Amino acid sequence: MEHAVNNAHPDHQSDMLFDSQDKHGLYKTVFNRRDVRGQFKPEPIPDEVLSRVLYAAHHAPSVGFMQPWNFMVIRDNDKKQQVHDLFDVAHNEAAEMFPEEKRETYRSLKLEGIMESPLNICITCDRDSAGPTVIGRTHIKTMDQYSSVCAVQNLWLAARAEGLGVGWVSILDQRKLQELLGIPRKIIPIAYLCIGYVDHFYNKPELESAGWLPRQPLSELVHFDSWQNTRTPEQDSLIAQINKDRDFPEQF
Amino acid sequence: MEHAVNNAHPDHQSDMLFDSQDKHGLYKTVFNRRDVRGQFKPEPIPDEVLSRVLYAAHHAPSVGFMQPWNFMVIRDNDKKQQVHDLFDVAHNEAAEMFPEEKRETYRSLKLEGIMESPLNICITCDRDSAGPTVIGRTHIKTMDQYSSVCAVQNLWLAARAEGLGVGWVSILDQRKLQELLGIPRKIIPIAYLCIGYVDHFYNKPELESAGWLPRQPLSELVHFDSWQNTRTPEQDSLIAQINKDRDFPEQF
Repeated sequence: MEHAVNNAHPDHQSDMLFDSQDKHGLYKTVFNRRDVRGQFKPEPIPDEVLSRVLYAAHHAPSVGFMQPWNFMVIRDNDKKQQVHDLFDVAHNEAAEMFPEEKRETYRSLKLEGIMESPLNICITCDRDSAGPTVIGRTHIKTMDQYSSVCAVQNLWLAARAEGLGVGWVSILDQRKLQELLGIPRKIIPIAYLCIGYVDHFYNKPELESAGWLPRQPLSELVHFDSWQNTRTPEQDSLIAQINKDRDFPEQF
Repeated sequence: MEHAVNNAHPDHQSDMLFDSQDKHGLYKTVFNRRDVRGQFKPEPIPDEVLSRVLYAAHHAPSVGFMQPWNFMVIRDNDKKQQVHDLFDVAHNEAAEMFPEEKRETYRSLKLEGIMESPLNICITCDRDSAGPTVIGRTHIKTMDQYSSVCAVQNLWLAARAEGLGVGWVSILDQRKLQELLGIPRKIIPIAYLCIGYVDHFYNKPELESAGWLPRQPLSELVHFDSWQNTRTPEQDSLIAQINKDRDFPEQF
């Protein structure tokens, strides 16, 4: 198969296939990204690093090219403390929702690094940023929120490549967070992120290491043409390949 | 600043900072990823490539490590045609929603590659995949859907690194898509993706080139500590850096 083309068209990208080093960089970032809560160091993030990470977020896909995101950079300690207070309230409420046998474990988990990280970023979704009718949002109304989530994931990956840890704090009353940050009512705070350099990155997600939940085998999550139409390695060569590649993520 | 550590702990990643080649691979992928609709080639995707791309999706972050996603691989032509019929209906409905002066432009846009791409993938969200109470979903109920969106973005980036185009088709009646694919009612179809090798990737998003909407300047999307607390380059060095880096995405 010939994927590479000699492409001199000014509107076209010249690289069809990326070389193995570029692919390695992408996969290494994907498989080494972690949700960081407890390993933040206080040293500041240089502007030139933060700028690159924000450009990565800004180049996420967005429905109808609406770019619904804004990036709120929170450096003020009082503001961070107030967000942390919101977390405390929600975290206590959350603990009560778990069955008693899991409550102790839940309380023992470190779930945020709001104060320890030098910087927090709130990524929002402005549903009106491109007018009332948006290409691709006519039938699935949440597509704009999904776009902002893609920006979160781009930021997270770029941060990891830059040696920065990111943690997504979702144990918060969204409405109170919105008031605290002065975000207009029609704009949704999608993700509250803690970001900073870290002592170390863990090899595995902390909830996996803690035995909270296991990693699902990928082959069990794949269906063909219709739900429940799963197949064995004998029936479908893709399943055989997925089973063979079981250790692929560990190679980075 | 010293970010790299000599890290011999078995649970810790050894690489704190990635080298410049790894960073280049990540940024190159982020900035060259496109929503592909019209450039698909029919040649099949090798199992070993598809397997790697699916592993990237499966290693997305997920709230409470619930991994709510499933991956429905749609290769059957009749099934694809039925999805395409759903698109046609929704696309006609959508055209009527635009003001008359934009309707012609809307109709002229190529917005899906369902039949031309060799493979479609539907990524779903099973809200019950980790029981009723999920760490981090206690207060923001949509966090599980956001996790599946992170899987979409990981898949999209891995695909681009492998030379594969991906297009997200969101002009569909979600409920009818769910019935057509036999997805249980409590499981949400988050993204319907077309995937395959392409003739070329465009330099810019098609809606940007078509003049539908311009790229927003990043510096205008950044706020500090509170909404509307935007700053000039003189007031904040991050804004100056962002303006200086205006061409950073074009370097890849």
